[in-house]
Amino acid sequence: MSARRQPPTEAQFIEKIERIACQAPSRRSVALSIGDDAAAVRVRSDRLLLVSCDALVEGVHFNLNYFSPEDLGWKALAVNLSDIASMGGIPLYATTTIALPKATPVSFVEEVYRGLAMLASQHRVALIGGDTCASRYGVFLDVTIIGEVQPRRMVTRGGARPGDLLYVTGELGGSAMGLELLADPSRLNQHIAAMVKRHIRPQPRCAVGVFLADHGLASAMIDVSDGLSSDLHHLCERSRVGAVVHSEQIPLPRVSRSQINRFSSDLLSYALNGGEDYELLFTVPQRLKRDVPPSIRGLTVHEIGHITRETGVCWLWQGERRTKLSPSGFDHFRDARRQPYTELAK
Amino acid sequence: MSARRQPPTEAQFIEKIERIACQAPSRRSVALSIGDDAAAVRVRSDRLLLVSCDALVEGVHFNLNYFSPEDLGWKALAVNLSDIASMGGIPLYATTTIALPKATPVSFVEEVYRGLAMLASQHRVALIGGDTCASRYGVFLDVTIIGEVQPRRMVTRGGARPGDLLYVTGELGGSAMGLELLADPSRLNQHIAAMVKRHIRPQPRCAVGVFLADHGLASAMIDVSDGLSSDLHHLCERSRVGAVVHSEQIPLPRVSRSQINRFSSDLLSYALNGGEDYELLFTVPQRLKRDVPPSIRGLTVHEIGHITRETGVCWLWQGERRTKLSPSGFDHFRDARRQPYTELAK
Repeated sequence: MSARRQPPTEAQFIEKIERIACQAPSRRSVALSIGDDAAAVRVRSDRLLLVSCDALVEGVHFNLNYFSPEDLGWKALAVNLSDIASMGGIPLYATTTIALPKATPVSFVEEVYRGLAMLASQHRVALIGGDTCASRYGVFLDVTIIGEVQPRRMVTRGGARPGDLLYVTGELGGSAMGLELLADPSRLNQHIAAMVKRHIRPQPRCAVGVFLADHGLASAMIDVSDGLSSDLHHLCERSRVGAVVHSEQIPLPRVSRSQINRFSSDLLSYALNGGEDYELLFTVPQRLKRDVPPSIRGLTVHEIGHITRETGVCWLWQGERRTKLSPSGFDHFRDARRQPYTELAK
Repeated sequence: MSARRQPPTEAQFIEKIERIACQAPSRRSVALSIGDDAAAVRVRSDRLLLVSCDALVEGVHFNLNYFSPEDLGWKALAVNLSDIASMGGIPLYATTTIALPKATPVSFVEEVYRGLAMLASQHRVALIGGDTCASRYGVFLDVTIIGEVQPRRMVTRGGARPGDLLYVTGELGGSAMGLELLADPSRLNQHIAAMVKRHIRPQPRCAVGVFLADHGLASAMIDVSDGLSSDLHHLCERSRVGAVVHSEQIPLPRVSRSQINRFSSDLLSYALNGGEDYELLFTVPQRLKRDVPPSIRGLTVHEIGHITRETGVCWLWQGERRTKLSPSGFDHFRDARRQPYTELAK
């Protein structure tokens, strides 16, 4: 009985949506539909347009106690750029839908769009349109990103093969650790302020994504948004493979022993399940191992495991001990709310 | 002092957004940016992609007491198709972002997407992707629509010239009248159920939009979403012209004398300021008047006035009496909430 009362998982929602969306017309120009980081449509023989959307909801993804409107604009675009990065694409255009409580001052919107425009400038993305409407409770910001990629260079979640090596960029866990610090600023100090920045103003890895695509290195790719454990499962499911990850090879934030006590979990847990790092997780055929540089565009790249035949099963090796790695990243519908809701303006 | 306390208008928000968005990079491929019903980007010399997004927010745009989840999906796509229609374009792909309270049953999402898929099938639109996330309060559904049009055939808000004739399709006011009936179902009867349907399941005028574009008839076009008075001002502002409208030529819903007492306003007020009719308002150069058929694809077309040189000024003639027509359609941030908020699921 208790199983019946459980709220549905995000995966159940998405599965249902995918099934019904298939009942809508298909178009021959659609090269990739629901189920990857972005959809792809053919507009010319030498060009695919990539389309993706991701929203930030107040009280779910952010809290205006510690997100400035500019941070909000930045992050809303960053999470979308990350989806284009993980396809190996170049972002081109963005549209934005913002819903705001009625009493919102115009200056709030101005700052949100300043944050959007700031990151858009870094990536040469044009802000081409959108919708502005009222909301009853809280701020809602949805961004749709349109990018492009050459058909042969596009990297999907579905191309990993047994034997491929598994890599991740940068380091994992910092964003979730930053979020924990934000919830209790008394624990904050200068050394760990970088984690807070990782949470609030993530840097999408577009240049790395394009490098991997241009050099034909990545057989599959996904961005780490939900958490390594969940995103690795997403990649494995689409590729119909399994994976082995070595815990000591996962790049963790550098935190001193005295500081580690400030956190509620161990570093590895944040790295595996924290999410919102927006690093790239990708696979490389073994024969191309030598072509993977130790760092790409200034960002370190870490081999953390390999792909296996065991469909949908991921193993985590910690020294001599092997445990099943279950997808325990953030689930919108199952997990406790992580961000307290704040009233914007009265 | 009281003027200071007034919440900002939607126009103020949009003006601010437009100004800041310009600070983001521009791309040569952007043919039309913020400020029209859709943005347009050049993907081939013979083809523009049209991009637009519009959201429906629970408690603002709809109420789940009288919107079924299927209605919600339908309408969210319909209002977006209408934006492609008013550019003379053909809709191709849609993405959807849905934010849902945690306790939402999977069947709710299933029905929303069934409504989306139903209308998508009628217009051969592929549902190619989206985002599903939690919300703290109420349902939020944002759709981004991508369509196409040949560069020479695209119709914008900005092409109306003094002397052009002003037309509208179908009839105006029914949707707002339907909404009023929904708020008090005791007033509902069979004869006026059609108005309720107009509000809940609007029919986007895609075929008419394409006809007008293909025949080079419309010099400017906009869809009637906020209300004739507001949308005519939008068109006039972009075209830097004014307009004259003859009230007796505005197509009103057919309602008997006995039924008219059920409504709080006169028919003309609904037609001018009601909004959400999703008819097309367009201008035609005088020399092409004879080429405008009395009905297009089964939908009647009505000449309701003409364009003048008087920038931004619209006059309404009622018999011998001339009054200034001010933009009094729905404003998200100024107007009273029209839809009561309902808790979805507990």
